[in-house]
Amino acid sequence: MDVVLVSPRNPLNIGAVARAMANFGFDRLAVVAPFEPHWQEASSAVGAEGLLQNAKRTDSLAEAVARCTLVVGTGTLTYRKPEQKVVSLPALAPLVQQELARGGRVALVFGPEKHGLTREDLSWCQLLVEIPTDPRQPSMNLGHAVAVCLYELATRALPVQSGKPAPAPEAVEKSPAASSGSLDLLAGVIEETMTAAGYSPRSMQAANRHDLRLLLRRLAPGERDTRRILGLFRRILWRLKRAPAKD
Amino acid sequence: MDVVLVSPRNPLNIGAVARAMANFGFDRLAVVAPFEPHWQEASSAVGAEGLLQNAKRTDSLAEAVARCTLVVGTGTLTYRKPEQKVVSLPALAPLVQQELARGGRVALVFGPEKHGLTREDLSWCQLLVEIPTDPRQPSMNLGHAVAVCLYELATRALPVQSGKPAPAPEAVEKSPAASSGSLDLLAGVIEETMTAAGYSPRSMQAANRHDLRLLLRRLAPGERDTRRILGLFRRILWRLKRAPAKD
Repeated sequence: MDVVLVSPRNPLNIGAVARAMANFGFDRLAVVAPFEPHWQEASSAVGAEGLLQNAKRTDSLAEAVARCTLVVGTGTLTYRKPEQKVVSLPALAPLVQQELARGGRVALVFGPEKHGLTREDLSWCQLLVEIPTDPRQPSMNLGHAVAVCLYELATRALPVQSGKPAPAPEAVEKSPAASSGSLDLLAGVIEETMTAAGYSPRSMQAANRHDLRLLLRRLAPGERDTRRILGLFRRILWRLKRAPAKD
Repeated sequence: MDVVLVSPRNPLNIGAVARAMANFGFDRLAVVAPFEPHWQEASSAVGAEGLLQNAKRTDSLAEAVARCTLVVGTGTLTYRKPEQKVVSLPALAPLVQQELARGGRVALVFGPEKHGLTREDLSWCQLLVEIPTDPRQPSMNLGHAVAVCLYELATRALPVQSGKPAPAPEAVEKSPAASSGSLDLLAGVIEETMTAAGYSPRSMQAANRHDLRLLLRRLAPGERDTRRILGLFRRILWRLKRAPAKD
């Protein structure tokens, strides 16, 4: 399982996250556009210095989760209406377990300290998880939020713990979901196709891109189907560019 | 439920604990012999400043848990053999729920950052709880440990959340356990009696005191029984002091 921190401000929090990951047996950390350049030396990564050194740094969330098949966003949803399915943390373990059992890769994404994930960030997520907190004080410390989520998953979705192999998929009724990167690739080609087809007025593009991203994640096509759809759109796009329709 | 921090060194950790308590709806914090005098102004208590201001400061753990009927110690037990019953955190909720349902009061005790609770501290505990961590990196950040425990209890032993009243005890088959303070009072009188009776050589006193404390917590007498036993020992002591035995 991947832990992804989007634009964390305080290096001590990044170190504390690394420590919590080591506590619960997780080892893949990605940090998207961190605020401080020297975050990898954070003294708070007690016993997890190596994990922090090996953390991946990316410029975008899309890049950080590109290889993941289930991207789970975190945060409190008190002040916004989510566009994705929301589960409470105690209900997350079986979903993660199922995804891992069918050979998928799961990312748990945390936003910056002050404001959490943006609507834009969340559009890369298939699922939102909410830690059940007191409505009078829902805002959690970043390290605490990570620790609580990883405790829950390590305790109740055992195969996610590194060191233990995922159990052999007993009845893989669905093929693995497409990775986030495949969906982004497909979305790009679809968008280009829409523009080439004159379907999407330029002024609407940002909103369309957002909705398209969400749509693909709701559909959750498998990797093979994603490649099929991609092939289809590439073909359409090629046709559109070579010989624009007359009408 | 009471959260008790024994000799915390870093005020930022105390503030972070207060914040985690507010997140999960807990409000009684006690701090035993804190290292820094100005811990109540910790900036990390985001949204929990009032809780921190109202925290109780005591000189001893005995005083902090005196009114509690179930005292639960926390920590990793990799390097010592515990003298009490140990449960893994996921198994704690029903025990806490049961104690609250019969009118008891529960304390969750956390040790100092570096070394955790001492054997002496643990002798005030009836029960030890262990957070299931990776054996390669069991040492948790203090705030993380508190957050994980409170998340577990808030989610799986609902009545502990403040704001919600504890459910009416349906079938109170046992009377409430005696408070930690009552047991300490009893232990003191028993010890005095033992000394007066010449039973306890001075050189053995510290070890005896420790064993006696553990013994009383294993027996877990009710408040009424504790008062009865106390009355008995007081009577014996009075006799011993007034008229020492000839033989």
